[in-house]
Amino acid sequence: MTVRIGVIGVGMIGQDHIRRLTYVLAGSQVVAVTDVDAARAAEVSGGLPTPAKAYASGQEVIDDPDVDAVLVTSWGGSHEQYVLAAIAAGKPVFCEKPLADTQEACLRILDAEVATGKRLVQVGFMRRYDPAYRAMKEVVDSGQIGAPLIMHCGHRNPSVPAHYTRDMAIVDTAVHEVDVVRWLFGEEIVATRVLVPRKSRNGGELQDPLIFIMELESGAIVDDEISVNIRYGYDIRGEIVGEDGTVTLADSNPVIVRREGSLSGRVPADWRERFIRAYDVELQEWVDSVAAGSAPTGPSSWDGYAAQAVCDAGLVALHGGERAEVTLRERPDLYATS
Amino acid sequence: MTVRIGVIGVGMIGQDHIRRLTYVLAGSQVVAVTDVDAARAAEVSGGLPTPAKAYASGQEVIDDPDVDAVLVTSWGGSHEQYVLAAIAAGKPVFCEKPLADTQEACLRILDAEVATGKRLVQVGFMRRYDPAYRAMKEVVDSGQIGAPLIMHCGHRNPSVPAHYTRDMAIVDTAVHEVDVVRWLFGEEIVATRVLVPRKSRNGGELQDPLIFIMELESGAIVDDEISVNIRYGYDIRGEIVGEDGTVTLADSNPVIVRREGSLSGRVPADWRERFIRAYDVELQEWVDSVAAGSAPTGPSSWDGYAAQAVCDAGLVALHGGERAEVTLRERPDLYATS
Amino acid sequence: MTVRIGVIGVGMIGQDHIRRLTYVLAGSQVVAVTDVDAARAAEVSGGLPTPAKAYASGQEVIDDPDVDAVLVTSWGGSHEQYVLAAIAAGKPVFCEKPLADTQEACLRILDAEVATGKRLVQVGFMRRYDPAYRAMKEVVDSGQIGAPLIMHCGHRNPSVPAHYTRDMAIVDTAVHEVDVVRWLFGEEIVATRVLVPRKSRNGGELQDPLIFIMELESGAIVDDEISVNIRYGYDIRGEIVGEDGTVTLADSNPVIVRREGSLSGRVPADWRERFIRAYDVELQEWVDSVAAGSAPTGPSSWDGYAAQAVCDAGLVALHGGERAEVTLRERPDLYATS
Amino acid sequence: MTVRIGVIGVGMIGQDHIRRLTYVLAGSQVVAVTDVDAARAAEVSGGLPTPAKAYASGQEVIDDPDVDAVLVTSWGGSHEQYVLAAIAAGKPVFCEKPLADTQEACLRILDAEVATGKRLVQVGFMRRYDPAYRAMKEVVDSGQIGAPLIMHCGHRNPSVPAHYTRDMAIVDTAVHEVDVVRWLFGEEIVATRVLVPRKSRNGGELQDPLIFIMELESGAIVDDEISVNIRYGYDIRGEIVGEDGTVTLADSNPVIVRREGSLSGRVPADWRERFIRAYDVELQEWVDSVAAGSAPTGPSSWDGYAAQAVCDAGLVALHGGERAEVTLRERPDLYATS
Repeated sequence: MTVRIGVIGVGMIGQDHIRRLTYVLAGSQVVAVTDVDAARAAEVSGGLPTPAKAYASGQEVIDDPDVDAVLVTSWGGSHEQYVLAAIAAGKPVFCEKPLADTQEACLRILDAEVATGKRLVQVGFMRRYDPAYRAMKEVVDSGQIGAPLIMHCGHRNPSVPAHYTRDMAIVDTAVHEVDVVRWLFGEEIVATRVLVPRKSRNGGELQDPLIFIMELESGAIVDDEISVNIRYGYDIRGEIVGEDGTVTLADSNPVIVRREGSLSGRVPADWRERFIRAYDVELQEWVDSVAAGSAPTGPSSWDGYAAQAVCDAGLVALHGGERAEVTLRERPDLYATS
Repeated sequence: MTVRIGVIGVGMIGQDHIRRLTYVLAGSQVVAVTDVDAARAAEVSGGLPTPAKAYASGQEVIDDPDVDAVLVTSWGGSHEQYVLAAIAAGKPVFCEKPLADTQEACLRILDAEVATGKRLVQVGFMRRYDPAYRAMKEVVDSGQIGAPLIMHCGHRNPSVPAHYTRDMAIVDTAVHEVDVVRWLFGEEIVATRVLVPRKSRNGGELQDPLIFIMELESGAIVDDEISVNIRYGYDIRGEIVGEDGTVTLADSNPVIVRREGSLSGRVPADWRERFIRAYDVELQEWVDSVAAGSAPTGPSSWDGYAAQAVCDAGLVALHGGERAEVTLRERPDLYATS
Repeated sequence: MTVRIGVIGVGMIGQDHIRRLTYVLAGSQVVAVTDVDAARAAEVSGGLPTPAKAYASGQEVIDDPDVDAVLVTSWGGSHEQYVLAAIAAGKPVFCEKPLADTQEACLRILDAEVATGKRLVQVGFMRRYDPAYRAMKEVVDSGQIGAPLIMHCGHRNPSVPAHYTRDMAIVDTAVHEVDVVRWLFGEEIVATRVLVPRKSRNGGELQDPLIFIMELESGAIVDDEISVNIRYGYDIRGEIVGEDGTVTLADSNPVIVRREGSLSGRVPADWRERFIRAYDVELQEWVDSVAAGSAPTGPSSWDGYAAQAVCDAGLVALHGGERAEVTLRERPDLYATS
Repeated sequence: MTVRIGVIGVGMIGQDHIRRLTYVLAGSQVVAVTDVDAARAAEVSGGLPTPAKAYASGQEVIDDPDVDAVLVTSWGGSHEQYVLAAIAAGKPVFCEKPLADTQEACLRILDAEVATGKRLVQVGFMRRYDPAYRAMKEVVDSGQIGAPLIMHCGHRNPSVPAHYTRDMAIVDTAVHEVDVVRWLFGEEIVATRVLVPRKSRNGGELQDPLIFIMELESGAIVDDEISVNIRYGYDIRGEIVGEDGTVTLADSNPVIVRREGSLSGRVPADWRERFIRAYDVELQEWVDSVAAGSAPTGPSSWDGYAAQAVCDAGLVALHGGERAEVTLRERPDLYATS
């Protein structure tokens, strides 16, 4: 059975997912697309081996009876509307992060999904599908390093575009650690702080780097270095410190070259190079869950909401300079097993 | 366009490729199968999301007009027959290694393919699709380590089954280095030797390990340690020594664990764990070439023939204890660019 | 010329330095010792190849005209007295850390040394002599990673003795990072904080681990994980994050073992194993400076004083939970070049 | 007790050992020197903190009653004469490699030493004192990788001087692996071969690289890549393959730098950088053995003789192209425990 997918928003990430579904993964076909730019929608649709229908609106994509499942890759402000519509239509929906752009919007989605009594929504936090993070979680869950007490993270970008703002260091960049930390530790983040180091000349006016501190329910503390203009490459670092040992993300270079006095490996150039397989696995597992008619196993609406709440607290900490607590609604039973 | 594939031989490797084509890769569908065990063919066929036709013979699979391309995964002795039949039918054929079980059989395939004037055959040497070997080749081809002079290889298996014979160390195990060395260096192997070290107690009667030496046209020398009962894991090692530097396959563990006095990474348990992605990429690229109607870019009939000739010389060296030269037919123009 | 050394305090660390001077390093001889335990002094003295004089008091050691230089390895509370006496006698003095047990005592030593117009005192912060930290400083000083903005440190002990208190995490453990950070960055620490993570079961009543945060004059921030019951080994971690790149202390295992499914290296068992060469180099360079009649090049009284001031602020932060600033006297010209 | 040492030959290596004895190690003093160049002997002697006597001949050095032990660092052809004279005088003698320049000369030394009934001679094979090789031997001896079956070695020099000849690849370069392999495996080498790969453009007329093959008594095989113009650095590689696992010399860089797209460590520039500590430990242990009046524990006359015999066979293999066997005299009881 081929899963027939409708895509809402065919910008860069939308097109990349369409390429993935069409040329890389098994078991799906993109049958309908739409975009605020109708010409772009038509062009993308026409470029497929079997052309998809190009609709004027996301609602039409969702309503199409030939669409089994919906992929939302439009701009963040529009996510709520399409995710709610998909829920209303009873169709599985994969929504790129963020789930929505406010906590309130996330809660409306939660309410709607809970009302249906089953999970329909998956949010695009792809790190949970990275083999290294998965191996890290296996080690933690095995108990071999004891209870996890501390995590050191680093999120390094060679550079960011001109429109990148101070807040984006939290809501666009650190949000990936927010999700993956919640998943690795299996608990919620209860408070945040931001430490502001000496500023890099590479960031211009931007305050870069930052150290984002997260406190978890158990008392565990995570420090997350956010360096978004570090030039040398895209480097995602992580070490979990347990009571009896630690587990660290390894460098992943395929070969070592020895020349001119040094031995060296390659650092990924960007997030595509680093996480391309994670995106593939993420979407394949989602397609498989839709084909099987079962609930998605990936990040849920609750995860999208919790990440939003932590980032909101992070912004308070960033602007106010103080520790900011995270307040979450009680967790519905539907999301009992994260 | 979906490539419709007929599979001849649905044993372990055949079933694994069917799984891959059905659940992992994009753009293909298994529409016909056959096996010497008709019941097994029926079972495999029936287990697919869309059942395939189960034929009584490979020829029927090849003749089916709904079959666009053929996958030969039967036992080695039957490869020649099916590959020749696929060539006769003008259909692209992917044949698991070996291409055939004698040089003469390989040459009959070469002749038949050359007579058609175009490449139809790809042989299943999957290492060329491994990201680490690809990175290694990029480094060599870039010239940054100078001309390649020596390669050190290691091919280590934790154990081998009871039916594994002395000759299989060459024709089943070292054959992978034979192909990947020819590809990495871009030249032919002209002679072989075998050194016989102290025997491991783990191998029982088997002479294990061996050191298989290959000499290349340019004079470059490759030493290949074959240790097939080394217990600790499946470990593929490689370093190319150039005039100015070297390039080495890196260890590929995703995480490092620190506990009980040591820091450690995982060694793959078997060839599946180590090369699963290489198999995926290999078959996806083949499917893509069929869909595009272009010649396959992977290992050719020539590569299958040359590997056979080198292994034959390797057996002479193994049994006689002396250096054994490799004699190859002149290379047809069809295989000018390997 | 052999440097004749008098040693005040022959407990564990004193005896270790005597062993080093006698059996490992060139150019010195221990000619006089003393200890609060006179019997122990006699025993140590008598055990030397050429017996040293055993005195009843440190003052007699310092006053002995056969003593060229003084090594203070008595308990911390007595350091001030002996260092001041050595300065009064115009003799070079190497004092194990801490220089003294209060900032006021440190300042009295500073005053006395400044009054002589030349450096006589070296404090035993041995990390500056470790090859890895030296290589790290070379990289920073070369400018190849840009200005240093952040440092991540980890100070991990397998266990600590029963008398280890909460405060010792700062004054005995983190003090090593305090000194080495000041040296690596070439600037003063201006404020500290302490974050208190989830407590390890291995530490009993002790609050372990801690994260000690240091802010430098330039705004650079250092986070220092203090885990003193981590069981798996003695592990000193460090990474300096610059504007354009980073430099990391490497793991220093001499061999990699592959067996039973993993490849692994050894983590040092304790500080002796990790830093034994640093102690050797430290003391050899000091002996050489004494032999040459030149000022010591190692950590000065100023460094001892500054470390004390930072630790005092660290204790305020630890007990009060807030950011605590460090206040330093103006730096005398004598210590102009750190 | 200070060991008083006489040094015969104060060229580069002689001066380096004098520096080491005088400024680095404990417990010795150079009291007499000689050299074929009398002016150089006088200069070196006068440059010491306590000037040594400068003699006109090695015999006078040996005869000086103030000389406790002799260090022979003259040219290879003169070693036999001085070692025999030291044996005749009953004085411990450390002789830089080679012990002598022919097997016959080595046997005359053996005979003379055996006649005295005790070990007086140590040969300067310093690799046995390198921490990495020592750790490797510990792993092998522990039995944790099973019986050793194969060793892969690499001996890489960035470049060699103009006078370096084809034979020196064996007698000056590979001789280090000859000794360390005998020591690691605890058995003799019984045959050698030489494989001749494609020639590097960096070596000019020189046949470089070579692969030197050694067969051991147990049947274990060692392949040793000799690349002496490889430009990128001085790199000593080694892996012992056992029945159940392997042990590998690790890369020893103190820090890892991340910049400009790669992470990299330093390769040593030359043998001094790589083995400086091994030389220190080697000589300190020898001095200590002299001071204790006990037999030296390092490489013996037997080891010097056996290395010579293996290199002689290696030259036969190099020139003749065939396997060449090593013939050794029966091992005297004096050298029962290597």
